[in-house]
Amino acid sequence: MNGAQALMKTLVDSGVTACFTNPGTSEMHFVAALDSAPEMRAVLGLFEGVATGAADGYARIAGKPAATLLHLGPGLGNGLANLHNARKGKVPVVNIVGDHATHHRQYDTQLQSDIDAIASNVSTWIRTSQSTSELAKDVAEAVAAASGPPGQVATLVLPADVSWSEGGVPSPPVTPTPRSTVSADVIDQVAKALRSGEPAAILLGCSTLLEPGLVAAAKVAESCGARLYAETFPTRLTRGAGVPAIDRIAYLPDMAKLQLEGLRHLILVDAKAPVSFFAYPGQDSYLVPEGCQVHELAGVSDDSVGALVALAEAVGAQADPTLAALAPPPRPTGELTAMSVCQAIGAVLPEGAIISDESQTCSLFLPGNTSTSPRHDLLALTGGAIGQGLPVAVGAAVAAPDRPVLALEADGSAMYTIQSLWTMAREELDITVVLFNNRSYSILNLELNRVGATEVGPKAKAQLDLSNPDLDFVALAEGMGVPASRAVDAEDFTAKLAAAIAAPGPHLIEVVVPPIF
Amino acid sequence: MNGAQALMKTLVDSGVTACFTNPGTSEMHFVAALDSAPEMRAVLGLFEGVATGAADGYARIAGKPAATLLHLGPGLGNGLANLHNARKGKVPVVNIVGDHATHHRQYDTQLQSDIDAIASNVSTWIRTSQSTSELAKDVAEAVAAASGPPGQVATLVLPADVSWSEGGVPSPPVTPTPRSTVSADVIDQVAKALRSGEPAAILLGCSTLLEPGLVAAAKVAESCGARLYAETFPTRLTRGAGVPAIDRIAYLPDMAKLQLEGLRHLILVDAKAPVSFFAYPGQDSYLVPEGCQVHELAGVSDDSVGALVALAEAVGAQADPTLAALAPPPRPTGELTAMSVCQAIGAVLPEGAIISDESQTCSLFLPGNTSTSPRHDLLALTGGAIGQGLPVAVGAAVAAPDRPVLALEADGSAMYTIQSLWTMAREELDITVVLFNNRSYSILNLELNRVGATEVGPKAKAQLDLSNPDLDFVALAEGMGVPASRAVDAEDFTAKLAAAIAAPGPHLIEVVVPPIF
Repeated sequence: MNGAQALMKTLVDSGVTACFTNPGTSEMHFVAALDSAPEMRAVLGLFEGVATGAADGYARIAGKPAATLLHLGPGLGNGLANLHNARKGKVPVVNIVGDHATHHRQYDTQLQSDIDAIASNVSTWIRTSQSTSELAKDVAEAVAAASGPPGQVATLVLPADVSWSEGGVPSPPVTPTPRSTVSADVIDQVAKALRSGEPAAILLGCSTLLEPGLVAAAKVAESCGARLYAETFPTRLTRGAGVPAIDRIAYLPDMAKLQLEGLRHLILVDAKAPVSFFAYPGQDSYLVPEGCQVHELAGVSDDSVGALVALAEAVGAQADPTLAALAPPPRPTGELTAMSVCQAIGAVLPEGAIISDESQTCSLFLPGNTSTSPRHDLLALTGGAIGQGLPVAVGAAVAAPDRPVLALEADGSAMYTIQSLWTMAREELDITVVLFNNRSYSILNLELNRVGATEVGPKAKAQLDLSNPDLDFVALAEGMGVPASRAVDAEDFTAKLAAAIAAPGPHLIEVVVPPIF
Repeated sequence: MNGAQALMKTLVDSGVTACFTNPGTSEMHFVAALDSAPEMRAVLGLFEGVATGAADGYARIAGKPAATLLHLGPGLGNGLANLHNARKGKVPVVNIVGDHATHHRQYDTQLQSDIDAIASNVSTWIRTSQSTSELAKDVAEAVAAASGPPGQVATLVLPADVSWSEGGVPSPPVTPTPRSTVSADVIDQVAKALRSGEPAAILLGCSTLLEPGLVAAAKVAESCGARLYAETFPTRLTRGAGVPAIDRIAYLPDMAKLQLEGLRHLILVDAKAPVSFFAYPGQDSYLVPEGCQVHELAGVSDDSVGALVALAEAVGAQADPTLAALAPPPRPTGELTAMSVCQAIGAVLPEGAIISDESQTCSLFLPGNTSTSPRHDLLALTGGAIGQGLPVAVGAAVAAPDRPVLALEADGSAMYTIQSLWTMAREELDITVVLFNNRSYSILNLELNRVGATEVGPKAKAQLDLSNPDLDFVALAEGMGVPASRAVDAEDFTAKLAAAIAAPGPHLIEVVVPPIF
């Protein structure tokens, strides 16, 4: 058994049964070993950002990491933006980066570079496997490190000779560290703040946004009259009918300040105190109002859901929380706008859907239009590195072949990892891509004003303009084997969307909408 | 004057008049400042790898750096693979990476990461500008550092507040360090080796592959009976009628060993001793034969062309060297194959063309078919990170609007930076893309065997297969505004190629060819 085969068996034994690949020569033995593990699904991407983003989307839905397979430093570089997003979302990823054989490195050949330096941008667990006999143990530890808490990108650098040499020994799985239990003292202090009668809010992050965390937190909030918020860009948020509704902290600092206005207590649960996404001249970045005390109920490695359950008990919350009703909006009519498209999505969204949302400014109208749609999961852009939405949809669909996946994409963002469409077609994934084409980096038109860059000439304007030439996403999708169409009005879009969701395999529907900004 | 305006004036005053951009919010003041410098051309890419590869291609042709504009760590990550290629090709690039405002960094918001760590993979000159008053000086020094010798990627990290604050002071240009003169002793020693009568070869690298270096080296080689080679992947190689012909060291180590067989002296001129691109089990990476003495005539920072001219004098070489004749191959007939397509390219190649070659296995037949075509420049894949060919063509066309540019692309490689086509259309660049579609990662089929991965099952094979679904590059090109067609046979391709070269603006011609491996 060579190193690669021992590695593959260990991955599978550790529960890693999907690998998102973009390999080169130094990974050929890993590739050859794929067939030695029948449980392992290998999904090829035409660009590394597809592979890393898919691993992220997979883990958000599967609740366990997938592996990537990348080709040396440049391959890791191409995959870095979506690994950054995974890192910020605390998503587990076992990142495997092939390297030259150990004896080849001394020559500093074309593809050689400092892999560890790049990996350090996204991984705190980085190891270069030094011997074939230890490789499987290394990968078992990588899986445990990735699994957290909190979830992280663990990067294993795999020299070609460590992979190809005989003497591989499969390793048993390594148990990840358990989450820490929050002390009774902390829970009592938070309960005291909440019962003080002073204005309070609970801010939920990453691990608390599935049903158990939401139910416990909503019980507390309703019992104490506290506001309840989710972080702005949740890794995975369960919402819709039958689940407690929750507003997210707004992206724009002015709006977030309104949400936080007058607070005397802010309770953080696996979340950070709100800060504006970008800095603006003359404005504060930190958004918590003066005089508001910040309490941390649970940190990133704590049992945050357990802490919320304990908190509900401590504050004496007994009543079941209010759950969102099932009352989707009516099907829209008339012109295609970001509003009418979001309304159509809310109108036809099926039970159990997964929404990967990277529609940027166009998604302003999504929460309102889907809050009483059937229950679904929302996967947001966790790290701000655009090009995440389509790959995340790929991974989510691989993780949950029985659930319909919607990828809501903006034109600008879509172009970073447009190659995802080919993987959707190859793997026959049940993904409906709604492509909001407003022919601009609309959000930058907004930001240009907000940062005070007021004198704007034609060259500056051109940097935000995606017309000239117009992108034709129907042609792009068809060029990669995905059936596609362009909606002409809201009725047409609604019908096309319902049909695409009902049909197997991927579909893309382009909607040309006016920019909001 | 704010920092961004002072920076822009300094760039232009330092000779940097092209900027390849993919900006975000933190770069909005840089964007707004573009219009303050009429000499600055701003070219938007839809993905950072397009911007960085275009900066590389621009500098190879213009002989001076362009700037990039990238958005924080993730933007740099997306641009990293082509910066890696620029680094390996010793190509000057002024890499400008926007960052959060200095006071915003303490909050570790979504887009924050360790930019320096990523930059250290490609840059030895990295500086975060700390104050608006010093910013222009920093950028002048960045331009000087990038310009070399040797050329390099100099990375300036630009915090948003350093850019937006008032108090910018333009800086005069900083003169780059000159190349070092090679000592007479070194030249005498090399001359002695060449006149020893023992088998010798001269290996030319990076800075020596334009006409002056080639002419001096060919004089020496012919005078001394030495073999003359170019490195495998030249940054820029002038070739064709009227220029001394030169073979490149082969990519495959077996073939390279034949080229080097029996040598007693190998003279390196801004080149490294040949090493195989990848390691293979049981094979040596170092390809110089035993008993061959390696002499360095000029290193990366030396005046290598001056050294070659001095060497010609030292060995008493007086006769003009043999120049390639003008004798292009006849137009091909029959089926489309990598061979017939390369022959067609040789047959219709116009005087002064620039070829950006990333056609991988399909380009095996290119050197032979173009060696007696009209004089042209060849730009190769310098760092092995695929996805370079289309962006380099963009940059070359921006640098030389009066020269026809051919981008020879393989299907697999094309998909890494396919967004380049949109920039070609927007900027109306005179680029003809020949898209070799063999529906596989053909080179990996070869490498899979070479590395000894002999037991190959269906999952492994699928990782190298680009069919299912077939990529339709005509649809992809048209989706990004580039006129495109698919050739049906060699005659049709030749006619389409000649027409595309003659017409203004970009064109793509897809050729479906059988894989060679």
